[in-house]
Amino acid sequence: MNFYENQVIAALAAIFGRAHEGVEVGIGDDGAVVSTTAKSVITTDMAVEGTHFNSRWSSAFDIGRKITAANLADIYAMGATPQYLLVALSLIGDETMEWIEELAQGITHEAKSCGARVVGGDLTRGPIKVISMTALGNVEKAALRSGAQAGDSIYLSSLPGWSAAGLHLASLEKNFTGDLEEYALSEFSAPTVDYSSAISFAAGGANSICDVSDGLLIQGKQVADASGVALHFMAEKFKAHAEFAQLEELAKTFGIDIWQWIFAGGEDHVFLATGTNLDGFEVGVVEKGSGLLGLEMKKAPDTWRHFN
Amino acid sequence: MNFYENQVIAALAAIFGRAHEGVEVGIGDDGAVVSTTAKSVITTDMAVEGTHFNSRWSSAFDIGRKITAANLADIYAMGATPQYLLVALSLIGDETMEWIEELAQGITHEAKSCGARVVGGDLTRGPIKVISMTALGNVEKAALRSGAQAGDSIYLSSLPGWSAAGLHLASLEKNFTGDLEEYALSEFSAPTVDYSSAISFAAGGANSICDVSDGLLIQGKQVADASGVALHFMAEKFKAHAEFAQLEELAKTFGIDIWQWIFAGGEDHVFLATGTNLDGFEVGVVEKGSGLLGLEMKKAPDTWRHFN
Repeated sequence: MNFYENQVIAALAAIFGRAHEGVEVGIGDDGAVVSTTAKSVITTDMAVEGTHFNSRWSSAFDIGRKITAANLADIYAMGATPQYLLVALSLIGDETMEWIEELAQGITHEAKSCGARVVGGDLTRGPIKVISMTALGNVEKAALRSGAQAGDSIYLSSLPGWSAAGLHLASLEKNFTGDLEEYALSEFSAPTVDYSSAISFAAGGANSICDVSDGLLIQGKQVADASGVALHFMAEKFKAHAEFAQLEELAKTFGIDIWQWIFAGGEDHVFLATGTNLDGFEVGVVEKGSGLLGLEMKKAPDTWRHFN
Repeated sequence: MNFYENQVIAALAAIFGRAHEGVEVGIGDDGAVVSTTAKSVITTDMAVEGTHFNSRWSSAFDIGRKITAANLADIYAMGATPQYLLVALSLIGDETMEWIEELAQGITHEAKSCGARVVGGDLTRGPIKVISMTALGNVEKAALRSGAQAGDSIYLSSLPGWSAAGLHLASLEKNFTGDLEEYALSEFSAPTVDYSSAISFAAGGANSICDVSDGLLIQGKQVADASGVALHFMAEKFKAHAEFAQLEELAKTFGIDIWQWIFAGGEDHVFLATGTNLDGFEVGVVEKGSGLLGLEMKKAPDTWRHFN
């Protein structure tokens, strides 16, 4: 990168925009000055090249979208509305200005879809690309992981597993042209997050909401533990989803157990909610007890912990 | 690192604490839920191993203190009061639990000194250590870089240059035992930030305040540009500082131009303010015009831009 820091910052500021509603001071001072309500939700998410994204597989635009989606999903998963984003960026130095601008455009694209705006950040240099983002939103009544109650139904915003399928395909480093393959790869590069589902879960009075970014096994267990209940998943309900047959076809092609993708895959940013009569895809019930029931995987997943 | 992510998070949560005033939900959900006022300041700072810290030179405690200080200083430099911190951490995997805990203790130590608390974060893995922090504070009237007025005096919270001196010594990789050397090295590893000076500048009605983390040349120019004025530094005022003779002695020992350390060094987290009758170390005056005047360096600094 043969640009001075202030040129890069000026280019980013032009894309992120300087004047936004609620923003008294944006990019360019020691911090941003923003309007806040009595109760705010804040969350942060770090993406490291090689661990969370790979610029060989994904465009800068998609990388920007994906990390932004991860942060926005966390805000919605608290029953909150995203307002402001901060972007801390470590660049190697070989990035073109086009790559940097595309990254910023991807961030802005995803942020705008939720009415959020980038109000500040940090730019530094290091041996690998790292993007760390912080989102701030306002909330009246937060929807927590600890709110699930025995008797609740369990809902998902969509069928999880497509991002895990895409990761598998990407790791094979071949060219895929089939529709299913392309869909899985695009969901891995930059998942489509159905924010409106989280809004609908919160508006519908969900007892608990969370973002399934590490996989249903991990986040399902967290909800069960935090709420002191068991989450009972039901295979036949998953099978009733319109996309199940397609995902299963893809899994069979590559000799994969589909339940591995569904339960142990992550990065889909599917929302999980518990409650009654919620507007989502019902996958089971909350029961007295503890842990997860009804897991259909034939063997334990390769990694029970997701360190990312 | 042979620990599961949840063990590391549990250890960090124990050090950061789960229950704090103003915090409805802390570590452990999709985001933290905190009390905020009508106007907030948010800022973020990323530290990358090799660029901003080196675990061979600095203890984990000092690394934690330093990155936290950088964020807190930015909040104070806006005339605001820090409240909440988020810590995103990328670890290599060879860190001991002791190292991780010491890092968290350094963060907590510095945060507590300002009444701020860690309310959330993210933990991931990557090829280098990266610490990205976000600070949120409340403010009534923000002190901006754009407020400097011709006729103001220029004040600093302390003499800049000690961190740059420490960086120089550290890069020589020798054992130093002299008091001056040890002081410079400790200011480089974990600078003592005089937050009370920033509070005093704001309370004294400063027209502008900023944190001099990239060096007086960089941030002085930013204040001058943002305010449409010239900042005129005066060598004799710097020379009157009680520590000037000591820093000069150190500079001479290593054949360095002291003004390079003072003007082009960074990472001291000295506060710069402009106004009248402020409680600080006066170093010059604001005049009509543009840019910086009175720079005493014998040659242009090695790097006029600090990409960090």
